[in-house]
Amino acid sequence: MAKLNHNYRKLSAGYLFPEIGRRVREYSAAHPDQAIHRLGIGNTTEPLTPTILAGLHGRVDALGQRETYTGYGDEQGETELREALVAYYAERGVALDPRELFVSDGAKADAANIQNLFAQENVIAIQNPAYPVYVDSNVVAGRTGEYDANAGVYTGLTLLEGNPENGWFAAPPAEKVDVVYLCSPNNPTGAVATREQLTAWVEYARGHGAVIIFDAAYAEFISDPELPRSIYEIEGVKECAIELTSFSKLSGFTGVRLGWAVVPYALRTEDSEDGELNRMWNRRQSTFFNGASNIAQSGGVAAVSDAGKRESRELVAYYMENAWIIRAALRELGLDVTGGDNAPYLWVKTPGGLGSWEFFDQLLEQTQVVVTPGTGFGSAGEGYVRFSAFGHRENIEAAVQSIRDNLKFWLRAKSRELKRSQFLVGCTRHLKLESHRA
Amino acid sequence: MAKLNHNYRKLSAGYLFPEIGRRVREYSAAHPDQAIHRLGIGNTTEPLTPTILAGLHGRVDALGQRETYTGYGDEQGETELREALVAYYAERGVALDPRELFVSDGAKADAANIQNLFAQENVIAIQNPAYPVYVDSNVVAGRTGEYDANAGVYTGLTLLEGNPENGWFAAPPAEKVDVVYLCSPNNPTGAVATREQLTAWVEYARGHGAVIIFDAAYAEFISDPELPRSIYEIEGVKECAIELTSFSKLSGFTGVRLGWAVVPYALRTEDSEDGELNRMWNRRQSTFFNGASNIAQSGGVAAVSDAGKRESRELVAYYMENAWIIRAALRELGLDVTGGDNAPYLWVKTPGGLGSWEFFDQLLEQTQVVVTPGTGFGSAGEGYVRFSAFGHRENIEAAVQSIRDNLKFWLRAKSRELKRSQFLVGCTRHLKLESHRA
Repeated sequence: MAKLNHNYRKLSAGYLFPEIGRRVREYSAAHPDQAIHRLGIGNTTEPLTPTILAGLHGRVDALGQRETYTGYGDEQGETELREALVAYYAERGVALDPRELFVSDGAKADAANIQNLFAQENVIAIQNPAYPVYVDSNVVAGRTGEYDANAGVYTGLTLLEGNPENGWFAAPPAEKVDVVYLCSPNNPTGAVATREQLTAWVEYARGHGAVIIFDAAYAEFISDPELPRSIYEIEGVKECAIELTSFSKLSGFTGVRLGWAVVPYALRTEDSEDGELNRMWNRRQSTFFNGASNIAQSGGVAAVSDAGKRESRELVAYYMENAWIIRAALRELGLDVTGGDNAPYLWVKTPGGLGSWEFFDQLLEQTQVVVTPGTGFGSAGEGYVRFSAFGHRENIEAAVQSIRDNLKFWLRAKSRELKRSQFLVGCTRHLKLESHRA
Repeated sequence: MAKLNHNYRKLSAGYLFPEIGRRVREYSAAHPDQAIHRLGIGNTTEPLTPTILAGLHGRVDALGQRETYTGYGDEQGETELREALVAYYAERGVALDPRELFVSDGAKADAANIQNLFAQENVIAIQNPAYPVYVDSNVVAGRTGEYDANAGVYTGLTLLEGNPENGWFAAPPAEKVDVVYLCSPNNPTGAVATREQLTAWVEYARGHGAVIIFDAAYAEFISDPELPRSIYEIEGVKECAIELTSFSKLSGFTGVRLGWAVVPYALRTEDSEDGELNRMWNRRQSTFFNGASNIAQSGGVAAVSDAGKRESRELVAYYMENAWIIRAALRELGLDVTGGDNAPYLWVKTPGGLGSWEFFDQLLEQTQVVVTPGTGFGSAGEGYVRFSAFGHRENIEAAVQSIRDNLKFWLRAKSRELKRSQFLVGCTRHLKLESHRA
């Protein structure tokens, strides 16, 4: 009798984004005439740029000619793209060998699969809040206990709590952990690790023989030259860090699918031989994967050409302007907003102590703006929502207008309600005191 | 201290195809003037057809326009493609719901990942010989013991031995197994399961609560109308079978990357709830995957249009003619060849009792033809090599000519050598007898 992998049953509720989709569909069905403003999923909206389009069309043409057709490529990625990515790192002073770079179909798949390199018994540490894939992939792999619905966490995982005090980027813990997922710029908080914060983590990893999985999918949104865009900008990090990144947000490849992982030769664990982790990931990709789409890879080569990078920077600037437009409006209404400086996400405290999903529902009801509930990213996200800056400018402006028009009114009512309930609480207290005296 | 997934160390030698690549590179380096005839890897060589090219270009154009750009798609695949695939199945009398179909980046990834649905303790049965991914993915997942180099097998796996007597398609075993991988048309043997053989397996699976993983990546090479192209053509199979398939060989998408898995609602195990396996695969794909490239998906929609199917059939016919050309030449030389009727692979017995890799090396040395050693697909492949029919016609003809010119000579010498050694053995025996008598 075949038996299921029961770890799947541990997974809490549905995956975040499908659940948002369900609520939005439900709302739309009940209000078919109302336009929905989608600031929820971090999904690119602007068209691919001319240089990239030329790269993609060029490869399709090549596939149509007998002389230039290619079938299976190297599972690790085409040499041209790996070399172009090495040059891309070299620009920021990071030296890599092309064989340390593994082209993939995106950072999400790599982020989910990378845990397979490590033994079951490793203690896993994950930022809270964080992109759900780090947790979910380890749950499915059986590295956690059950979900504790009250605490909103899985037993057996070490959570690195972000909060306003640590700038949403936790310092290394006192206890020993083995594999640490760090995401900077962070999704969902938009927080970016400073050089000092990353250095502290690298020292921790080297001191404890831990491995850092560094998700740099949003690196290109960093404009502050003081902030590291790659973890390899920190000294001595190759022996303790894997970096995952992506063309998704950089070049609008969310649907085209292209990313890469860096697994340095120098990376090691207590029980590894020289270069073994690099060879293991090579074996993993050769066995469980068959290379990213060759068309996408030609798009990637175009994206990191000089013209491609120029166009990508313009795309990034466009989304960052969106972020500033949204942030200004939210702050005008008195909401507490962080992020959005070097990341396309705004992290917004819910007003009046509302829960994340409550504020999500209110925003949908009152303003038809879809955001992402902070709790979808972990228990420490409770009391926050994420606004994404991806969208056409006019849609961002319409969303902002709807927030200005409708949320203001609701916030006032909410505040009146709050004052009224505070007044009632005061009266009750007063009456109690009176009766006590009597 | 982080620790490795030590299951990787159990994996025997390098992955088959990289090892072939290494030997060919070594030979080429030593003989830079000799042309290599590659009949090894089953890699498509003919250009994409006009209808598919139009589909791909059309999607690239759409991604370049603000109005038609799309970002993340559904992880399960675009609705248009899922519906087109349902229609494709309907043509052969198989009724599926689009939500039972999961578009992927190819059958290899699905074949490697599908084991994740099942508990660690399931007993896994795999055809011997078979495509290496079924075994390797279960080794990495920890469902086997160590590799027994003498027997050429991993302990803990049940192997279903193919041989000339069972037409290289084993009947269900006497013992109980839980998850069974079947590939038809089989890679490497080219054997195709008959309706009766599949029915026996379905009865076994229903009787024992086993699940069949049916790899139908080469289904479109079946021209005999009596042979099932989908396992769902067998009665009552939805409750016990998953089907994996691909656009790779059908439409030349080996590098474009597109495939799909069918996980029926009705599929069940002893411990599953209604539809749970379908929901689990949905969750797996939503967590570990982010959809196939949207460009490739538009190519897929074009490939299963009427014009696309017509063109794909011509492509398949072209490769099948290659198969017949190779087969005729090998048989002329007196070699024992099976397969190649409804599959693009020929399964050839090595002459004079040579080992698979020995014959591989001899073919490379004598004829510069690269094949695939049968042992690369499992211990039962020893004494066989696989010839692939993928190639430009003129290259196939050149390979065949080189075999005719050079192998003939070598085979004759080999046969003389054999006769001589038999003569020597005879003499030795005779002398022994004489000395015994003396």
